[in-house]
Amino acid sequence: MKIYEFATAPNCRRVRMYMVEKGIDADYVGVDITKGENLSPDFRSKDINKKVPVLELDDGTYIAESVAIQRYFEELHPEPPLFGRDAKEKAQVEMWNRRADFNLMFPVGMCFQHVSGFFKDRMNVYPDFGEDSGKRALKFMDTLNNHFSDHQYLVGDYFSVADISMVCSLDFGKVQNLRPSTENHPHLTRWREQLKERPSFKA
Amino acid sequence: MKIYEFATAPNCRRVRMYMVEKGIDADYVGVDITKGENLSPDFRSKDINKKVPVLELDDGTYIAESVAIQRYFEELHPEPPLFGRDAKEKAQVEMWNRRADFNLMFPVGMCFQHVSGFFKDRMNVYPDFGEDSGKRALKFMDTLNNHFSDHQYLVGDYFSVADISMVCSLDFGKVQNLRPSTENHPHLTRWREQLKERPSFKA
Repeated sequence: MKIYEFATAPNCRRVRMYMVEKGIDADYVGVDITKGENLSPDFRSKDINKKVPVLELDDGTYIAESVAIQRYFEELHPEPPLFGRDAKEKAQVEMWNRRADFNLMFPVGMCFQHVSGFFKDRMNVYPDFGEDSGKRALKFMDTLNNHFSDHQYLVGDYFSVADISMVCSLDFGKVQNLRPSTENHPHLTRWREQLKERPSFKA
Repeated sequence: MKIYEFATAPNCRRVRMYMVEKGIDADYVGVDITKGENLSPDFRSKDINKKVPVLELDDGTYIAESVAIQRYFEELHPEPPLFGRDAKEKAQVEMWNRRADFNLMFPVGMCFQHVSGFFKDRMNVYPDFGEDSGKRALKFMDTLNNHFSDHQYLVGDYFSVADISMVCSLDFGKVQNLRPSTENHPHLTRWREQLKERPSFKA
């Protein structure tokens, strides 16, 4: 079993943080996406999107997408549960996990890709759309700050994979200087400080 | 228990198809997004993103996001399982469900929003980005066609919620005339014809 990844990529961090929280070891294989090592036909056979992370099972099956990899391990190592403990909590974790993706990871990623032009060898860039996406990401930090004014974690007092997804999305924002401020986002800052105390934070 | 929805919205169809597959009844409450009924402060208290569908539980909890609603019911009504039957299958369903969102629903939605300007009263539009998104959606239909050349469903011979997500994303493309062709996408067409035979298809 191997996990193909690029250490500084935010979706790879989601998997690494998850694995530390669960106490699961894995073999990590580096794929340098800055050099385009993920663009080879060989890598495309692992993931049609040519992205990392990808989990390779011992039977040769490839599982792409960070959340899919996490769910694979959640089934095999259910304790401690990170995807919710009952129907309502599972639904709330899924809801916040998707908000982490659609409200933060995605707009930050669009800002990064379309403004920095980092991947312009492999995609068309629309800087105005990228700038607008960055503004939406910043605006969502206000929404998050408001949420954390009366919630310890995204789903009440239950730490979940949604918190991992959200903090990885939030920290990814730094690449385009999209950051919360202690002054304007005290509750969001408090939540992040709390996550920093977990051993998984530095994974 | 109520489900707030707008009948022609693709993410609402995902939930309705799912409910028919599981044989679960629910009260559906129409929210006319073309008239902005979802933009009220009252609706924002149901979903910070002011989107449909939203599930209201009897205890007053709101669950937004189509997949979160599906997962809520999957826990309470596990048969027939639509999110996978073991760790590997659950991971593969999650992987394809995310591909349905990121590779098709999202680019189709971006094309619709940025080219048609349907929601231009509530967002900035970047038509060039929208056109490019449409092209990416079409290109993904080639990838899907290739996948279905040797797979009955997205995850082998197992019909799952990922097939629901994908067909709702595919059919949403019609709004911008992003369609597969029988000639160029025979396997994708075969897969869709197969889904058409299910009672849930017209949900």
